[in-house]
Amino acid sequence: MSARGLVIVNTGNGKGKTTAALGMALRASDHDIGVVVLQFIKSGAGYGEHVTAKKLGVEVVAGGAGLTRGERDAPEHKRLAAALWKTAAEKIASGDYDIVVLDEITYPLQYGWLVIGEVLDVLRIRPPHVHVVITGRNAPPELLDFADTVTEMVEVKHHLRLGIKAQPGIEF
Amino acid sequence: MSARGLVIVNTGNGKGKTTAALGMALRASDHDIGVVVLQFIKSGAGYGEHVTAKKLGVEVVAGGAGLTRGERDAPEHKRLAAALWKTAAEKIASGDYDIVVLDEITYPLQYGWLVIGEVLDVLRIRPPHVHVVITGRNAPPELLDFADTVTEMVEVKHHLRLGIKAQPGIEF
Repeated sequence: MSARGLVIVNTGNGKGKTTAALGMALRASDHDIGVVVLQFIKSGAGYGEHVTAKKLGVEVVAGGAGLTRGERDAPEHKRLAAALWKTAAEKIASGDYDIVVLDEITYPLQYGWLVIGEVLDVLRIRPPHVHVVITGRNAPPELLDFADTVTEMVEVKHHLRLGIKAQPGIEF
Repeated sequence: MSARGLVIVNTGNGKGKTTAALGMALRASDHDIGVVVLQFIKSGAGYGEHVTAKKLGVEVVAGGAGLTRGERDAPEHKRLAAALWKTAAEKIASGDYDIVVLDEITYPLQYGWLVIGEVLDVLRIRPPHVHVVITGRNAPPELLDFADTVTEMVEVKHHLRLGIKAQPGIEF
């Protein structure tokens, strides 16, 4: 058995894709492992996870513009996604981080703001110790083929459908 | 829409059940939300997540004896599970915690060390603000019925099957 950097994908329509990636960062932060989380949809700070991650020495870059139905073609989204992907590619290639989380990058891929071939090119030539964790619904088939580990989070039952509102610590 | 304590179940054969619960603790710790994690299988300290959780003010109680095939009927398991469940029930009933994580409690339920009816009785009469997060494979049907949110983590592809060994920050 060998140790090497993995490509780990958390996809599916259920909860826990980003949360599991954050949990991995939490777990890793005690191993003196360098972790950076790049968020392709969330914009700016203000999420509980950002403040906590900072306390743990985990770097979080939120470079998206949110995601609202109907404005998916806005050039702003494409510009932000391209800029954050450039940062991500540099951080992956630098070898300075053991774990790079590309949170919700599947949406820019799905909406055509980023091209899967270019993402895979960067993953393919990354330093061998670098793990890359990718989250988001509808991960493209090329990514699933390339990944070492794929977990699908399947929603079996969801309380928001039962008329219970989003709550701190649970949804955000 | 109302706000109230939820019962959240992360089950399935894939990765991310415990990690997502830990990520929720990470996210919650910035909201001044009291979180306790009770681990029914893991024994003692030494996991990266324990040290990190402590830094965040998240209480972790690891009260299991590990899980090795062939020794599932050992009275020691049953004794430990019963003792930890007693602690868990008290913490849930106290109302002192906003989120109580019962990590891997599904195994004691599956192996008959704990009785699902007794667990549900405690959940049913808990203070209304208390969220309970339950992780582990093979969650019993009565628990799935009772839960507000159920996510199944499905293993689509796993690197350990590809001959890559367990690595710090990824598996532990």
